[in-house]
Amino acid sequence: MKILFSFLPKPEQQANLLEEFPEVEFIFHKGLDENELKSADIFVTYGEDIELSHLETVKLLKWIMVASAGLEKMPLKEIAARDIVVTNVRGIHKIPMAESIIAHILSIKKCLPLVAENQKQKVWFRRVQSFELHGSTALIIGPGAIGGEVGRILQAFGVKTIGCNRSGHAAPYMDEMTSFEQIADVLPLADIVISILPSTEETKGLLTYEHFKSMKPSAIFMNYGRGDVVKETDILQAMQKEYIAYAVLDVFENEPLGQDHPFWEMDNVIISPHISSHSSQYLVRALEIFSNNLALWLNGNKELDNIIVLEKGY
Amino acid sequence: MKILFSFLPKPEQQANLLEEFPEVEFIFHKGLDENELKSADIFVTYGEDIELSHLETVKLLKWIMVASAGLEKMPLKEIAARDIVVTNVRGIHKIPMAESIIAHILSIKKCLPLVAENQKQKVWFRRVQSFELHGSTALIIGPGAIGGEVGRILQAFGVKTIGCNRSGHAAPYMDEMTSFEQIADVLPLADIVISILPSTEETKGLLTYEHFKSMKPSAIFMNYGRGDVVKETDILQAMQKEYIAYAVLDVFENEPLGQDHPFWEMDNVIISPHISSHSSQYLVRALEIFSNNLALWLNGNKELDNIIVLEKGY
Repeated sequence: MKILFSFLPKPEQQANLLEEFPEVEFIFHKGLDENELKSADIFVTYGEDIELSHLETVKLLKWIMVASAGLEKMPLKEIAARDIVVTNVRGIHKIPMAESIIAHILSIKKCLPLVAENQKQKVWFRRVQSFELHGSTALIIGPGAIGGEVGRILQAFGVKTIGCNRSGHAAPYMDEMTSFEQIADVLPLADIVISILPSTEETKGLLTYEHFKSMKPSAIFMNYGRGDVVKETDILQAMQKEYIAYAVLDVFENEPLGQDHPFWEMDNVIISPHISSHSSQYLVRALEIFSNNLALWLNGNKELDNIIVLEKGY
Repeated sequence: MKILFSFLPKPEQQANLLEEFPEVEFIFHKGLDENELKSADIFVTYGEDIELSHLETVKLLKWIMVASAGLEKMPLKEIAARDIVVTNVRGIHKIPMAESIIAHILSIKKCLPLVAENQKQKVWFRRVQSFELHGSTALIIGPGAIGGEVGRILQAFGVKTIGCNRSGHAAPYMDEMTSFEQIADVLPLADIVISILPSTEETKGLLTYEHFKSMKPSAIFMNYGRGDVVKETDILQAMQKEYIAYAVLDVFENEPLGQDHPFWEMDNVIISPHISSHSSQYLVRALEIFSNNLALWLNGNKELDNIIVLEKGY
């Protein structure tokens, strides 16, 4: 059994794997080693290196472990045709992303930027117009692993959570549910609207300018999914016309955001440059998921965690 | 039954009371109406207006409802001698204060001030050194109503909570407890140290310069109780020597903080000018507590919520 990595875990992380699985041959290599891949049984990658041409040379490959959430760049159809299992690290982002989302919400509600500015000016100013998160309503579009974690914590703050997915079927930590089709009915009720949707044919352009017009003037819109859920020009116009109070954007149509983009200078737009999932704990958690799956695999159990349904792409 | 207010609730709040309690005569008056007080059964006040001389004129007064938490300015001994019940709005601050505390913690952990500065500079910078709140340990000194609310929410974030009170007896939402005497043992374990202590003989100067020296270099100290729990010069020195990473101060020895105080210019000190308890919901909640108690009172039930033990003063 040979396992090839195309990135380098830290030395102690490598040592842990060697110790835990002495029967396995591990090859840790920075970048895809095409020669080793030919005879590897398992390939561990960040998902951006494997191409169609590689698939034609592999002889034993049965499992690709992708240490990230996005699989957009992988030749999934051809992998499926070769009966190769793909797993990812779905859910690994949920803790840092939920913390980032709540951080921005509370910072806005408690006027922390103004409080900081007053400190800079050495002004003891107490008439800050802060608001409570408690008692708000949040619409969580895409209540999966991350959305559920956001919902769980918001509920602890006394926030009512409304989840929105394709069919409107129940999701954990959502007080109510709605479907993509009926989203226009609930947008006017929400104090916070959070999109955590992946990019698929169904989610592209789900939100429009008209939707922003229907939201509360005090609403906060947060995009933590993919940039194409709404046209950037629609957000821009809505924010210029101040239809809602704040937009917190972690993702954009084009990244990095161009230096001349109007968002940079807008007081009601907060740019989080695709950093919400950053965490010092990332690789620790990814390797934990991998180890658990590898133990199953070596015992002949093919029901791994986080298996990708290759036809759907998630 | 006559109820005298010495402040004016909003018109709709007044209307609600009149509707809910038609059998009662309400007198809403801005400032203490000494004449009406003589024949009032119940007096509702912010607590800063009633004096000894008034007590000598009252004939029917049996209950004073104080719509604030502090009772320092009231003649409690003389009130007790006349067998008058005093209630306050203990716990009314817990929601806004807990939200403010978590807001500052997450803002620091997620480097929001740096993210904002980068936006100002139009810099797409992703290598922000953000940290997770999840997995941290918080020491909550004074785990009462507010501290418990902070503990409850921190636990939802996956934080271990250690409560610290006089005797070390159990408190809600604390994973562990310790006593004032043993605080030095737990300070080195905490990532976040939050004081929410009132000012009493026992809490004055509870924390010292030496304590700061023993904390983690990455620790955040937050004072949301009273300024005299630690000498300001001790905090100043500790922060100048960078013994810990951040101090978030909502209270100070002297308020407002003098314009020439070094805190204003320190990057590792965050000044929240005694605003953490501010809330647009304040009077709503105070009147809710009052209505509930009044309903009990009118039914002859004298076991009101938030009765003050007048000898102790809290």
